[in-house]
Amino acid sequence: MQESKRKVKFSDFSKHFELSESLQYSKYLNNINSPQDLKKLKSSELILLSEEIREFLMRNISQTGGHLGSNLGIVELTVALHYIFNSPFDKIIWDVGHQSYVHKILTGRKDRFGELRKLGGLSGFPKIGESVHDAFGAGHSSTALSAAIGIAKANMLDRRDMPDISDDKYTIAVVGDGSFTGGLVYEALNNSKNCKNLIVILNDNEMSISRNVGTMADYLANIRTTKKYYKLRHKTKNVLSSVPFIGKSLVKISQRVVRLLRRSLYNATFFEQVGFDFLGPVDGHDINKLLAVLNEAKTRENPVFIHVKTQKGKGYEKAEQSSAEYHSVGRFDIKTGILQSDGNNKINSFSANFGSKICESAKKNKKICAITAAMTEGTELCRFRKEYGDRFFDVGIAEEHAAVFAAGLAVSGYIPVFAVYSTFLQRSYDYIVHDIALQNLHVVFCVDRTGLIGEDGATHHGIFDVAFLNHIPNITVFSPSSYDEFNKSFDFAVNQLNSPVFIRYPKGGEDKDFNKKLFDLNNHNTGNNLDYIYIKNKKNSESKFLIVSYGRISKIAFEVYSKLNNNNINADFLKLNKIKPTDYIFPEIKSSKAENIIFIEESIECGGISEYVSSYLKKVNCNKKIKIFAIDNFIEQGTTEQLFELCGFNPEKIYKTIIEM
Amino acid sequence: MQESKRKVKFSDFSKHFELSESLQYSKYLNNINSPQDLKKLKSSELILLSEEIREFLMRNISQTGGHLGSNLGIVELTVALHYIFNSPFDKIIWDVGHQSYVHKILTGRKDRFGELRKLGGLSGFPKIGESVHDAFGAGHSSTALSAAIGIAKANMLDRRDMPDISDDKYTIAVVGDGSFTGGLVYEALNNSKNCKNLIVILNDNEMSISRNVGTMADYLANIRTTKKYYKLRHKTKNVLSSVPFIGKSLVKISQRVVRLLRRSLYNATFFEQVGFDFLGPVDGHDINKLLAVLNEAKTRENPVFIHVKTQKGKGYEKAEQSSAEYHSVGRFDIKTGILQSDGNNKINSFSANFGSKICESAKKNKKICAITAAMTEGTELCRFRKEYGDRFFDVGIAEEHAAVFAAGLAVSGYIPVFAVYSTFLQRSYDYIVHDIALQNLHVVFCVDRTGLIGEDGATHHGIFDVAFLNHIPNITVFSPSSYDEFNKSFDFAVNQLNSPVFIRYPKGGEDKDFNKKLFDLNNHNTGNNLDYIYIKNKKNSESKFLIVSYGRISKIAFEVYSKLNNNNINADFLKLNKIKPTDYIFPEIKSSKAENIIFIEESIECGGISEYVSSYLKKVNCNKKIKIFAIDNFIEQGTTEQLFELCGFNPEKIYKTIIEM
Repeated sequence: MQESKRKVKFSDFSKHFELSESLQYSKYLNNINSPQDLKKLKSSELILLSEEIREFLMRNISQTGGHLGSNLGIVELTVALHYIFNSPFDKIIWDVGHQSYVHKILTGRKDRFGELRKLGGLSGFPKIGESVHDAFGAGHSSTALSAAIGIAKANMLDRRDMPDISDDKYTIAVVGDGSFTGGLVYEALNNSKNCKNLIVILNDNEMSISRNVGTMADYLANIRTTKKYYKLRHKTKNVLSSVPFIGKSLVKISQRVVRLLRRSLYNATFFEQVGFDFLGPVDGHDINKLLAVLNEAKTRENPVFIHVKTQKGKGYEKAEQSSAEYHSVGRFDIKTGILQSDGNNKINSFSANFGSKICESAKKNKKICAITAAMTEGTELCRFRKEYGDRFFDVGIAEEHAAVFAAGLAVSGYIPVFAVYSTFLQRSYDYIVHDIALQNLHVVFCVDRTGLIGEDGATHHGIFDVAFLNHIPNITVFSPSSYDEFNKSFDFAVNQLNSPVFIRYPKGGEDKDFNKKLFDLNNHNTGNNLDYIYIKNKKNSESKFLIVSYGRISKIAFEVYSKLNNNNINADFLKLNKIKPTDYIFPEIKSSKAENIIFIEESIECGGISEYVSSYLKKVNCNKKIKIFAIDNFIEQGTTEQLFELCGFNPEKIYKTIIEM
Repeated sequence: MQESKRKVKFSDFSKHFELSESLQYSKYLNNINSPQDLKKLKSSELILLSEEIREFLMRNISQTGGHLGSNLGIVELTVALHYIFNSPFDKIIWDVGHQSYVHKILTGRKDRFGELRKLGGLSGFPKIGESVHDAFGAGHSSTALSAAIGIAKANMLDRRDMPDISDDKYTIAVVGDGSFTGGLVYEALNNSKNCKNLIVILNDNEMSISRNVGTMADYLANIRTTKKYYKLRHKTKNVLSSVPFIGKSLVKISQRVVRLLRRSLYNATFFEQVGFDFLGPVDGHDINKLLAVLNEAKTRENPVFIHVKTQKGKGYEKAEQSSAEYHSVGRFDIKTGILQSDGNNKINSFSANFGSKICESAKKNKKICAITAAMTEGTELCRFRKEYGDRFFDVGIAEEHAAVFAAGLAVSGYIPVFAVYSTFLQRSYDYIVHDIALQNLHVVFCVDRTGLIGEDGATHHGIFDVAFLNHIPNITVFSPSSYDEFNKSFDFAVNQLNSPVFIRYPKGGEDKDFNKKLFDLNNHNTGNNLDYIYIKNKKNSESKFLIVSYGRISKIAFEVYSKLNNNNINADFLKLNKIKPTDYIFPEIKSSKAENIIFIEESIECGGISEYVSSYLKKVNCNKKIKIFAIDNFIEQGTTEQLFELCGFNPEKIYKTIIEM
């Protein structure tokens, strides 16, 4: 923390501001503990306040890690929103929510930024329980407008019941342009008719996390470049209203032309076509223009759509230039811009291993395609994009489309590989059931970020995929703990299966030593070891315990196994790689001499593998005792180690619990 | 079947056609066994063929039941498509798929229409395994364009690998206007850039199943009414290109005006704005115009969007006038138009009971709102819409938005009740997890059409909701077997709970006698019987079996219980109503003297209640034996009775199996 108090000058990295000596000198920010305090400032002082907020963000995020670029980009917009509107009376809904730091700073939470994204600390996302100013939680994309319409309609119903309410309540949804690649936004737009006091702000930084793709992105780009068009439009409107409809060649067509033109003037954008008043584009770093447009929006009868142009990473040159890299960061050195890893090393991680493996496979097999939902960098598909561009598809934040599109490729004989984070795969559920599993199509899902994800917290943990996949017929699921297992599973999935298959892996890398140990000790020498690893007790005699696990958490399970054996309690170890169908392992478990079966599963217990296997053992009257260590609720943010502890994944404690059995 | 051979004249019901003596007299249709046969006809003969197809549809659907209105509406379009394109070389993808009957008739399946929607017979939806002409299966809405893009991109990759392919392969997605209320379509539109030989046909009948809602519907209506605008557009284009940019007051602005106008002319619709060539609107019952527009579409470089206007129920006046009623029908009398029930009686059904109950509750509690995703009729919300219009929200085919919108109402103190079919609720999965359960919001889901749904088959069975809900923290699930239980559960859900709650019920009505018997025999006299009913064996002595079930299938379970007791084998009966959390029932089960627990569950076994309870019993070393009768795979179409048999839900067989235990 010492460093953050030093006078740091980094003018070589930023033209825009210098860090002041310490936060004590934040003249304006220090006095702001609620949006009410903000309103005491003159509008001219908001520019200086914004600079102080940038400094505050830089100081804090460089120490704690977090979402840097999006928050640097939204400083002025957030200040303007809280200056014009009255939170919590008015509701501001942040789509995705990682851009809500400035909102948190202005709503009484700046003193808690040292604990940002830490266990028990401030969430990196809006969270209803955290503040009355967090009107709706977020984490996944494209939900804000739907929630805002719900709130706006509720306000309209309130007014009906209590017509004496004097003030209008506004509902403001702040939505990044990336979120407009998600279909939910359009379902919401389709339901925004006659919504009173609803304001949608398009925070357009031309980025979701990766650069945006698709025709909607082009369309927004088209609007972006038409500032002149809008000006012209304004001027022309007046002129046109006085055009006389008379005589002569050119003028002959003018009646029609003018009618046509009027029509196009009043319905120039898609958003106007679906019932919004459209304002903008506005420079999102110009406070005065923002105040003006927000005040204008308050006067409109229709729902209002404001197009605000911002720059991700604004004010920090490094972040401006490499916005994907500085989107979500670990600690970093402000001066040099050097980033510490956020836990997913670009070279040694399951994601990176996947990124190499799919390129290697694509070289041999021309049918392999890669799909990402706006996560090219996160899923490590950059190399594939570069080398096999024609077989690479970034579909935007559209996990639903990704699944059905993959199904379309699959029925045509291609082998689509959709790389997706576990928590976002939740959106594909119906399409996995209805379009892929029911039709038994050969689509490969590489499910990244499974299990506890760390600092992003409850909205991002990948703890449900096992439960929501396990009950779907026709599919196969692998959950490797090593790159070698992943690679073999991938080869098998791509080249040998002809049905839907999921390969799931956590953030971060393999534990090489652990996996090597497993490989050396493995007593399961039939086949190619793809399905599971079985390690007998060290004395090779009858065991009292069989420890069963899969994926990353099997390291903890192995520690329990070791501890038992080291204490002269015979135990066997079974690490699954293929977790669905699991039935192949039933004979192994049933024939085991162990009286006690211990499952350790980094996933929700209900509907998971432990439950499935134990229900089976019950049905066949197997009289072994069962103990399950798994997850049984939503889990908060924290380091993975802290969360393991919280969930009871502690080898020492598990050991103690089971020897008491 | 006799009736269908009689000469029936129903000119009072239709201006458009008469049924001919019998199908043998279908001059053209009789000779068409593949799309190749169709191409032998002159284009002028296609009109007569279309009339024959209408007759064929009327004859058959009046006997088998099925989707009437949508198929009568799409006759000419389907004929034109198969005349112009070459299936299966070209791929035609039917969105939702219930409008694919004409396609099936033309692709060699007309002789199987007597077995339409019957067990082992022709599916009511496109199905990959059924014919090479069914390029992609369907059942749920809005998927066709995503699948078509996958197929189109695959074709483009094929051409890259095999540049000597001479012919162009076309991919045609036929999408109803109702499907445009679903977000998936927009995710797909966003990914259609540069798709070669992709043709999207908007089959615009101004209906999904109910009348369409929302701003997109308005927008399409707007396009509809602008036929003149399009004509004008065409004419004006030519005039404008010769406008001189010179002098004088009006002419002064004309340079700008003309530029602006040109821009608006070339990008008039949203679909053009996102990169499509837009053709239409075209009268979807005018074969010649359809042939012309499809031929035109084949010449375009860009993906093409064709706006076709059709009328649901075309040619059968009854169906034209009451299109929702004739959307999906049971058998009906062609002459009188009288419909046999399709199984969900308007008066005696769980849906109808819900429809009354929510109105009654809404009268007392002004916070109750109702939400439907384009299923006002199916979920029986018509009365609510009429009586409480301001609290009624039809959001379109948008189950994702419905869930998040409901969450927005809930955070504002309202009590949203989202009535939705189980199979469509699958689309809300992520939003239930991320927006509702995680935030623990008081949203009530009335989940209709749970369990086996009958003739609509695999895409429509509600067999997954228990498994995908059971593992989500914070939620409560009820599964009543009687209206009384439903009503009590609903009251409890609305008035006493303050967290997410699901009440699930099947198609059709309660079995009054069965439920009365349960009520009379119930030995569980604590509380208000909301959670479960417990019936001891008839001798009130120790039981050998405990039969556990819930929902509709508990009637079968009770028959097993009765059979056991009638054969002097003591058995107890436990019928759950609250199925999540289920833990409250553990003491009852554990303390039961029965050595054998038999679960009968009309739901996928994996991740379901039986598995959950049996896993629990395993964990606590309960030494009772377990036997589960549940569903373990996708299930085909058939009558509910046939499907029960298929799934092993036969009291006789279950009885035999368990006495062998």
